[in-house]
Amino acid sequence: MALSNEIRFSKKRTWSHDLPISYLMQQGVENPGVLSLAAGLVDQNSLPVSITKNAFESLFSDSGAAREALQYGTTAGSLSLRKLLLTHLTNLEQKSAEELGVTVDNLIVTTGSQQYLSLLGEVLLDPGDICLVAAPTYFVFLGVLQGLGARIISVDTDESGMRMDSLDSTLEMLESQGQLDRVKMIYLVSDYENPSGLSLSVERRKQVIGVAQKWSKQHRIHILEDLAYRELCYDGPVLPSIRSFDKTGETVILTQTFSKSFAPGLRVGFGVASKQVCAAISDKKGNDDFGSTNMSQHILANALRENLYYDHVDYLRSVYREKRDCMLDSAETYFSKFRNVHWIHPRGGLYVWMTLSESIETGFQSPLFQKAIHQDKVMYVPGELCYAFDQGIDSSEQPVIQKNHMRLTFGVQNIEGIREGMKRLSDAVKSFI
Amino acid sequence: MALSNEIRFSKKRTWSHDLPISYLMQQGVENPGVLSLAAGLVDQNSLPVSITKNAFESLFSDSGAAREALQYGTTAGSLSLRKLLLTHLTNLEQKSAEELGVTVDNLIVTTGSQQYLSLLGEVLLDPGDICLVAAPTYFVFLGVLQGLGARIISVDTDESGMRMDSLDSTLEMLESQGQLDRVKMIYLVSDYENPSGLSLSVERRKQVIGVAQKWSKQHRIHILEDLAYRELCYDGPVLPSIRSFDKTGETVILTQTFSKSFAPGLRVGFGVASKQVCAAISDKKGNDDFGSTNMSQHILANALRENLYYDHVDYLRSVYREKRDCMLDSAETYFSKFRNVHWIHPRGGLYVWMTLSESIETGFQSPLFQKAIHQDKVMYVPGELCYAFDQGIDSSEQPVIQKNHMRLTFGVQNIEGIREGMKRLSDAVKSFI
Repeated sequence: MALSNEIRFSKKRTWSHDLPISYLMQQGVENPGVLSLAAGLVDQNSLPVSITKNAFESLFSDSGAAREALQYGTTAGSLSLRKLLLTHLTNLEQKSAEELGVTVDNLIVTTGSQQYLSLLGEVLLDPGDICLVAAPTYFVFLGVLQGLGARIISVDTDESGMRMDSLDSTLEMLESQGQLDRVKMIYLVSDYENPSGLSLSVERRKQVIGVAQKWSKQHRIHILEDLAYRELCYDGPVLPSIRSFDKTGETVILTQTFSKSFAPGLRVGFGVASKQVCAAISDKKGNDDFGSTNMSQHILANALRENLYYDHVDYLRSVYREKRDCMLDSAETYFSKFRNVHWIHPRGGLYVWMTLSESIETGFQSPLFQKAIHQDKVMYVPGELCYAFDQGIDSSEQPVIQKNHMRLTFGVQNIEGIREGMKRLSDAVKSFI
Repeated sequence: MALSNEIRFSKKRTWSHDLPISYLMQQGVENPGVLSLAAGLVDQNSLPVSITKNAFESLFSDSGAAREALQYGTTAGSLSLRKLLLTHLTNLEQKSAEELGVTVDNLIVTTGSQQYLSLLGEVLLDPGDICLVAAPTYFVFLGVLQGLGARIISVDTDESGMRMDSLDSTLEMLESQGQLDRVKMIYLVSDYENPSGLSLSVERRKQVIGVAQKWSKQHRIHILEDLAYRELCYDGPVLPSIRSFDKTGETVILTQTFSKSFAPGLRVGFGVASKQVCAAISDKKGNDDFGSTNMSQHILANALRENLYYDHVDYLRSVYREKRDCMLDSAETYFSKFRNVHWIHPRGGLYVWMTLSESIETGFQSPLFQKAIHQDKVMYVPGELCYAFDQGIDSSEQPVIQKNHMRLTFGVQNIEGIREGMKRLSDAVKSFI
C-alpha cells in the first residue's frame, strides 16, 4: 500500500479555517502603505513605558519578589494580583465584594480576556450548542464560537443595545423548535460595544438577567458580559455592569482586560464566575498552559498597588477622547456631504460605526474595499464580519446581513493618521455615491 | 415549569475532571509542613534575577522598543524572537537551518511548551483518536489527551526509552483491529524523560521516523517530540533530536521551553512543525489568545541576543548536577539498605525514578502515600499517574499498571531539602518493607 502524507486534522480544526482576522492582518502585511483604521491595536504613544519601568524596578528591587515572578505561578493566577483585582472590581462597581458576592476564588487571570472567552466557550459549548449575540457584535468572538462548532443566533439591537423583546421572542422561537435545551449563553459587550460603540441601557442590564432566568427551564443559561472597554469612558454616565444586578452571581459571567486600559503586551485579563464555572475553566486552563505569564501579573500588581495604574487610565481617557473627537470631526468634514452616510457618536471605547447607503457593499470582495486598499491606501473592517452566520439553518433562512457598514477605529492612528485615513476613506467612498 | 439552576457543561469538560495535578497541588496547600519532592517547580535560588533585570533595562532603555513590547504582538510570536529561536535551534542541533529545513515560518511561540502540546492536541485529535505514549510518560500530557477524549495507548520501554519493536507491534495490532485510521501521533520525551530520566537512544531516534512513516498508510502519523529538558544535561553525550533525522520535517513536530533552562515565570515555549500544522495551530491560537505575552518574548529575546542566556544555562547545569548528585547520594545513604528498592541515575533533567518492591503500592490512597504526607511530611508523585489508561477498552483488557514507583524531583528543594526529604521518605518506606 502506498504511504499517505495527507494530514487528517481534527474536526474542529476545519471550523477555524479562514478567519477574517487572518485575512485582515495579511492585507496589512501585503500592502505596507495602507493606513489602517481597521487594526485593533492600541495607541502607541500613550503606552505606559515609565509606569511599567517603575513597576518592574520596584518588583526587582526585592530579589525574593523577583524570584517569585520568575517561578511558576498557579493556574488561576497570582493570589496577590487577584486580591488587587477584587479591589479594582469593587472600585469600578462602587459596591463591596460582599454586595457583589465575589471573592478571590471567583476570579481567574487569563492571557487577555480573549483567553477567558475562549476557555468559557470550551467548557460550556458542544458543537451545535447555541450562543445568542447582538447584531452586530465582536467579530473575533464569532470566530471563537465558530471554531467550537456552536450555533450563533443574532438578536436585534437598537441604540440602547440588544433588544430585550427580540431576545425573549428569539428564545420563545427556539423553544418552539425544540432547541431551548441547546441554548447555553447570551453574549453581551455592555459598554461601548465593538463595533457599534453603543452601550446597553441600565434598564436592559436589569432585564436581561430576568430573561436569561425565565428561559433557564432545562439548565442554566449564562450571560457572558464582556467589559473590555468599560474603563475607556469619555463622556456621559458610567453604567453599573450587568453582573452588579445579579444577586447570586450565578447567571452572569463577567470578563475584563488590561489590554485596552494599560498594555496589551502584558496580556492580562480576568473573569469572574461562580465557583463551579471557575473549576471548569481552571481544569481546562491547567491542561492548556497551567497559568498565564507570572511576570506580567507581578508587574501589573505593582502598578495597581502603587496606584500608578489609575493615573494612567485618566490620562488614556484624555488621549482617546481627543482621538475620538478627531475621528468624529473628520467624519463631519469628509462625509457629511454624502447622502445616506451616517455614523454613531460613541461615548467610550475605540470604534466608530459608519453606515453607507444600502446599495454600497463594504465586504472584502466589494469594489469599495478593493479600491480603498489598493488605490486610496486605507483599510477598515467590513461591517458584515460582525454579523453572525447561523450554521444550524439553511442559507435561505439566514437573517438578512447588512453589508453597508464599516467599523472604524481611532485606537492605533495618531491625530494626523486619523484625519488622513478619514480623508482617504471618503475618497474611496465618493466614487460609489 | 420550575427553573433549573443546573449547569450543563460541554462534553469535554467532563473529560478533564479530577486531574491528579490538582489533587497534588491541593495536598501541598493543605499540608504546609510537607517537604515536596513532587512539585514541578524549578530551583528558586538560581532563577535569573540579574539577567532578567539587565535584559529588561536594555529593552526599556529604548522607548520605541519598550512600546513594541507593550503593544499587541502577533499570534505566532515576535519575529525577532523567532529569528533568535531559529539560531538557538541550529546551535543545539549543530546543523544549519537549511539542513534542518526550518525557517521562522515553521516556528510558533506559545505560553510554555505546555500550550504547544495542548494546541497540537486540539488541532489533530478528535475524541477516540489515538496517541501512542511511552510507559511511563509525562502525566500532565496524559491529562491533556484525556481532556480531548483521545485514546492513549502505552508502548513498552526499557533503559533506552520506548521500544521500537513494541511500537511496531502495537501499530500492527491496531491495524488488525481496524483502528489504524485513528492513530494520529506518537508522543516522545526524547531527552531525560519525565518521569523516568531516561533518554531515547540515537538508534531509536532514527528508527522511530521509519516506523511512523511505515504505518502512515491512511494518513500521516506524526511524532511529537517534547524536548523540555534537552538543555539540562549534566554528563554523558548530548544527543541529536529525532527532528534532526527527519529530512522533510513533515513527520516530526518538536517542542521546547525556556521554563526549565531559564525562567518559567516568563512562560515562553515554542514548537517547530510543517507549515500546514503551523497554520492549524496558529488559527486555534488566534481564537484562544491571539498571541502569548509579548513582553516576556521581548525580554527573552534580549537575553538571547546578548548571550546572557547561554552563560546562565551553563551555570544552571552545575547547580542541578550538584542537586542530582545529592539526591542520588541520599538514595544511596537512606535506601540502599532496603531490599528490592532501586532507582535510575539520570544524566539530565529533573527526576529520579524510584522503584519499590512490587508489593508496596505508592498511589494517593495507598498507606505509604498517606503515611508519607501526614506523618513523615514528605510528598512524591505516585508512579501510576505516569501510566496511561486506555479509555477505548475494558478495564479487564488494560495493560497492567505498575503501582510501585515514585517520581522524585531534585528541582525545587535545595541541597538540605533534598537530603531531608529523602531521609523522611526512607522513614515512610521503612515501615512497609
